[in-house]
Amino acid sequence: MQIGMIGLGRMGGNIVRRLLQGGHSAVVYDRSADAVAALGREGAARSDGLEDFVSKLELPRTAWVMLPAGDPTEEAVNRLAALMSAGDTIIDGGNSFYKDDIRRAAILREKGIHYVDVGTSGGVWGLERGYCMMIGGDREAVERLDPIFRTMAPGIGEVERTPGRDGRDPRPEQGYLHAGPSGSGHFVKMIHNGIEYGMMQAFAEGFDILRGANSAELPAENRFDLNLPDIAEVWRRGSVVSSWLLDLTASALASDEKLESFSGFVQDSGEGRWTINAAIEEAVPAHVLSAALYARFRSREEASFADKVLSAMRKGFGGHQEPKAS
Amino acid sequence: MQIGMIGLGRMGGNIVRRLLQGGHSAVVYDRSADAVAALGREGAARSDGLEDFVSKLELPRTAWVMLPAGDPTEEAVNRLAALMSAGDTIIDGGNSFYKDDIRRAAILREKGIHYVDVGTSGGVWGLERGYCMMIGGDREAVERLDPIFRTMAPGIGEVERTPGRDGRDPRPEQGYLHAGPSGSGHFVKMIHNGIEYGMMQAFAEGFDILRGANSAELPAENRFDLNLPDIAEVWRRGSVVSSWLLDLTASALASDEKLESFSGFVQDSGEGRWTINAAIEEAVPAHVLSAALYARFRSREEASFADKVLSAMRKGFGGHQEPKAS
Amino acid sequence: MQIGMIGLGRMGGNIVRRLLQGGHSAVVYDRSADAVAALGREGAARSDGLEDFVSKLELPRTAWVMLPAGDPTEEAVNRLAALMSAGDTIIDGGNSFYKDDIRRAAILREKGIHYVDVGTSGGVWGLERGYCMMIGGDREAVERLDPIFRTMAPGIGEVERTPGRDGRDPRPEQGYLHAGPSGSGHFVKMIHNGIEYGMMQAFAEGFDILRGANSAELPAENRFDLNLPDIAEVWRRGSVVSSWLLDLTASALASDEKLESFSGFVQDSGEGRWTINAAIEEAVPAHVLSAALYARFRSREEASFADKVLSAMRKGFGGHQEPKAS
Amino acid sequence: MQIGMIGLGRMGGNIVRRLLQGGHSAVVYDRSADAVAALGREGAARSDGLEDFVSKLELPRTAWVMLPAGDPTEEAVNRLAALMSAGDTIIDGGNSFYKDDIRRAAILREKGIHYVDVGTSGGVWGLERGYCMMIGGDREAVERLDPIFRTMAPGIGEVERTPGRDGRDPRPEQGYLHAGPSGSGHFVKMIHNGIEYGMMQAFAEGFDILRGANSAELPAENRFDLNLPDIAEVWRRGSVVSSWLLDLTASALASDEKLESFSGFVQDSGEGRWTINAAIEEAVPAHVLSAALYARFRSREEASFADKVLSAMRKGFGGHQEPKAS
Repeated sequence: MQIGMIGLGRMGGNIVRRLLQGGHSAVVYDRSADAVAALGREGAARSDGLEDFVSKLELPRTAWVMLPAGDPTEEAVNRLAALMSAGDTIIDGGNSFYKDDIRRAAILREKGIHYVDVGTSGGVWGLERGYCMMIGGDREAVERLDPIFRTMAPGIGEVERTPGRDGRDPRPEQGYLHAGPSGSGHFVKMIHNGIEYGMMQAFAEGFDILRGANSAELPAENRFDLNLPDIAEVWRRGSVVSSWLLDLTASALASDEKLESFSGFVQDSGEGRWTINAAIEEAVPAHVLSAALYARFRSREEASFADKVLSAMRKGFGGHQEPKAS
Repeated sequence: MQIGMIGLGRMGGNIVRRLLQGGHSAVVYDRSADAVAALGREGAARSDGLEDFVSKLELPRTAWVMLPAGDPTEEAVNRLAALMSAGDTIIDGGNSFYKDDIRRAAILREKGIHYVDVGTSGGVWGLERGYCMMIGGDREAVERLDPIFRTMAPGIGEVERTPGRDGRDPRPEQGYLHAGPSGSGHFVKMIHNGIEYGMMQAFAEGFDILRGANSAELPAENRFDLNLPDIAEVWRRGSVVSSWLLDLTASALASDEKLESFSGFVQDSGEGRWTINAAIEEAVPAHVLSAALYARFRSREEASFADKVLSAMRKGFGGHQEPKAS
Repeated sequence: MQIGMIGLGRMGGNIVRRLLQGGHSAVVYDRSADAVAALGREGAARSDGLEDFVSKLELPRTAWVMLPAGDPTEEAVNRLAALMSAGDTIIDGGNSFYKDDIRRAAILREKGIHYVDVGTSGGVWGLERGYCMMIGGDREAVERLDPIFRTMAPGIGEVERTPGRDGRDPRPEQGYLHAGPSGSGHFVKMIHNGIEYGMMQAFAEGFDILRGANSAELPAENRFDLNLPDIAEVWRRGSVVSSWLLDLTASALASDEKLESFSGFVQDSGEGRWTINAAIEEAVPAHVLSAALYARFRSREEASFADKVLSAMRKGFGGHQEPKAS
Repeated sequence: MQIGMIGLGRMGGNIVRRLLQGGHSAVVYDRSADAVAALGREGAARSDGLEDFVSKLELPRTAWVMLPAGDPTEEAVNRLAALMSAGDTIIDGGNSFYKDDIRRAAILREKGIHYVDVGTSGGVWGLERGYCMMIGGDREAVERLDPIFRTMAPGIGEVERTPGRDGRDPRPEQGYLHAGPSGSGHFVKMIHNGIEYGMMQAFAEGFDILRGANSAELPAENRFDLNLPDIAEVWRRGSVVSSWLLDLTASALASDEKLESFSGFVQDSGEGRWTINAAIEEAVPAHVLSAALYARFRSREEASFADKVLSAMRKGFGGHQEPKAS
């Protein structure tokens, strides 16, 4: 099956590679001619502009947009829409906000163009392990594209099968999900990332307490000098917290026991924020997911204004002085 | 009425002053002879050692210990107990852990010595405004000492009376409370401080968001350059958040609009921690009080190990690099 | 000075009353003819429709909209805008979302109509105590309306003056603030409410722990049976947590010691939610304000799905059974 | 190698079975003669009292106590200590508080008896998958018992090896860890459980938001009716949140899509609480781990007193009434 790919960064490029390896064909476009040329050498059909790109797609056309969320994706979708026709499909495989998907899908629907949003997890490992995909869009388009998704997905692999799934949709076991109408793919991916933030923060706090077990704040007889790489490793075997995130932590600690190569400045992407917005819209308590997001915000501040307000009050009611900067 | 005071720091010294002004008499002791001499000049009877101190107390003796919680208080109580006799009373007016009070009271009870724990709030302002006191101990001792507590307390003042209190204990309206048996005074004071932490953090976060309203992270048309001193001031008049802590914040902002004289390094005292321990023992959710405590812990770290763990995982699954230190 | 008031509920009606008492005049409109008639009897000019209302306003016209946020306010503002002309002013005194203010102000500005947003706190007590107001809008309109705001505000009253305010805007001391351009009034009010949620939750958790001090989960020797009304009362005098919210708590506990007249179902209004959204947009950590909001969400659920997910996992890894419903 | 086992519940019994299957021998004791008889039939040596039990152990003796933490374990350790002699080892394999371990080890050390604390995770699955063990105690005892631990542990299995571990202790890769001196085994296990709570709550909140995507609180065009079993399943393949806890969630949802067989009453064990106490002692922020614990506390309350305090305040300042119970 043929697919067109716009945006040949790490994600877009590797998706094309995995599809080519799976026997599909691809037309590719990127602002960087070098990126286009590179994938051309690997078997993709090159294009040198959006018009050329669209003209090389077979009917009904399928254009996968793999660009940064926000303006770049919005602009590409709009330009494609102007060049494509009823029955064609535009896929947004980036990290768009699901309400943008809902809005775009409604507009494209009037022209008969399908809009499919695909959230993917495990991106950087996807070429090797496959892409875990959460897909939103109308049934017709999603089913037509099934050969693409099946190739991209990890497949059942060696993961033990979940008992009691007989009679359910077989696609999730292959690693891809048709979540519902347009927007639902990115919605599910968004919540995935929200959970990811929470899990990461749970590990982060736990390892921080393990490291602090040797703190001078503790009575000497209660201190432990713990081996964090070994702890992460042992938990990988049979413990309740075994997980891919633990595997990654074990690997990082094995090579840099004190994580001295990191400064602790932690970025966040839109999904973590949008997850909290969604929780609030639904009136669902999300203490852990929020706290995980805020820890990242705080990690990027040297001295928070909030903390200064605390110090100012403490001076006011108790005459407390801050220690001199050391 | 006569009282003995051990520990003539700001708190102990001012309590003696307020009592002397109220017509009581005092015997004072401190490791610093200068501190003893100073209060001597203000009318207190001096002593130059614990034996001398105890010998100058009228029967039944009352010794108020105003020392740092932990070892200094423990030692003073033990030494006093050895010198005092049945019917006497030892008051711990410091910030002791309530379980230490319970333990000490049980031991002293065997010797017939009363143990009274007094938590005070508003300390630094107490000489002028009076001390808000939460008192634990047996009824006999607490009632005998009532003249002392009445003098120390703020009194009804200009605070509007709470409707519906007719028939209730009149002492709380005067600003002192007999909370229950030994330990309960410090327990109530502990929770007071826990609440204080939560309220302070609520203000701190709120003012941080107000200040951030001009953040470059926001679209230009949504930014506000707000005047924080004026905001704190306006809330003091008729708003739901009006409070002493707000008064203090308004005062601090009026003189240092950006709080540049503070670094944001915020200490915590035992009470905030013990409050969380108590909540956990009781299985009571305490999200806000805990978060307020943790914000202080975090304020004292430059780069948290937890944050480095997050960065390590992000590099692992997504190849994310931290920005170069700027 | 004359003002028009649309919406004569408790807030709108009392504002008119306070203005009439202060020597101003008012034209009033409400869907309820009874409400209009009632204020007519108190001296306001009646109107029986928006056209009639606008026709009775002196130039430049001032129309205060005091309706529920969202559709009712939006509709009233739009209809007024169609009837009013350059130089007139529309005030939104409700609880609108500040981004709605920014949007509306931009539209009205094209017609030369001023848009002023006023957030008020202490509403139900405003007739008696005055209204604490946070005002957004252009300088010209806000200054023209100053007599109105001055009359509505609480004034300096008996609140002690903040040292160091010499040379600053005198209005905040009177209880009203010109925060900045349109939207900033509701923005500041929004953060006020966010802080209010946090402070309330701090008290709520603290009193919950005080009550739990008698819990059967504790060893008998560590239990206290505390008198909550007395504790709230004593803290009103000189303690660090003294505040209007504490006054209200003391009053509620004095008349209903166990708060048995309440079920614990706690609503939230938009401001608490928007505060978190603003914090997230600014990347400011808001642990306490979020936790306070979530506690309200949780208060309205009998059995949370999240908790069922926990139970399902516990059964999965540990065979743990939930206790039979008792 | 021979081991004695006291306490033949699910955990103790299965450990004996796994050891017998691995070629070791066992002496067993339990208050239930039936339990003793059952394991006797599977090849263990029976005993009918602690004296008999100890007398059947080869020198140096090894007694594994697998009883509820607290009094039962304390009593068994004390009684064993009285019957055993220098060079023997007592293992506490339960969920003891690490400070109890430190205390007991110090006492036993005076008699020359080794004390080894073993925290295990994955208990109910241990017979089949092996036990992930975190061990505290002196090197001599832990190394002597290595054959026992090696048999009990899961072994390397199919878990991918962590790069960069060459030269490190090989035991963690087998699924057991010598964490340090007595108490450190249970300390590491405690933190493991703290992390587990946090991860569980992250999933719980995420699935709650997914379910809430169909909430009537949302605009109709933004609602999604999501298939939770399929979402859990798809994330098991290649996503960042893949983990054993997710496997268990997928399994539970597959058989009970709405989790209607659960009421959402969630117990907590000591470890979650002690983790927070440890964090506080070390002054390490633990927002997520605390929030996870508090969610469990809250799950067990129908109407929280804290929420009633909020309602009381809201009535006080705004006249807000709670809705009638529905």
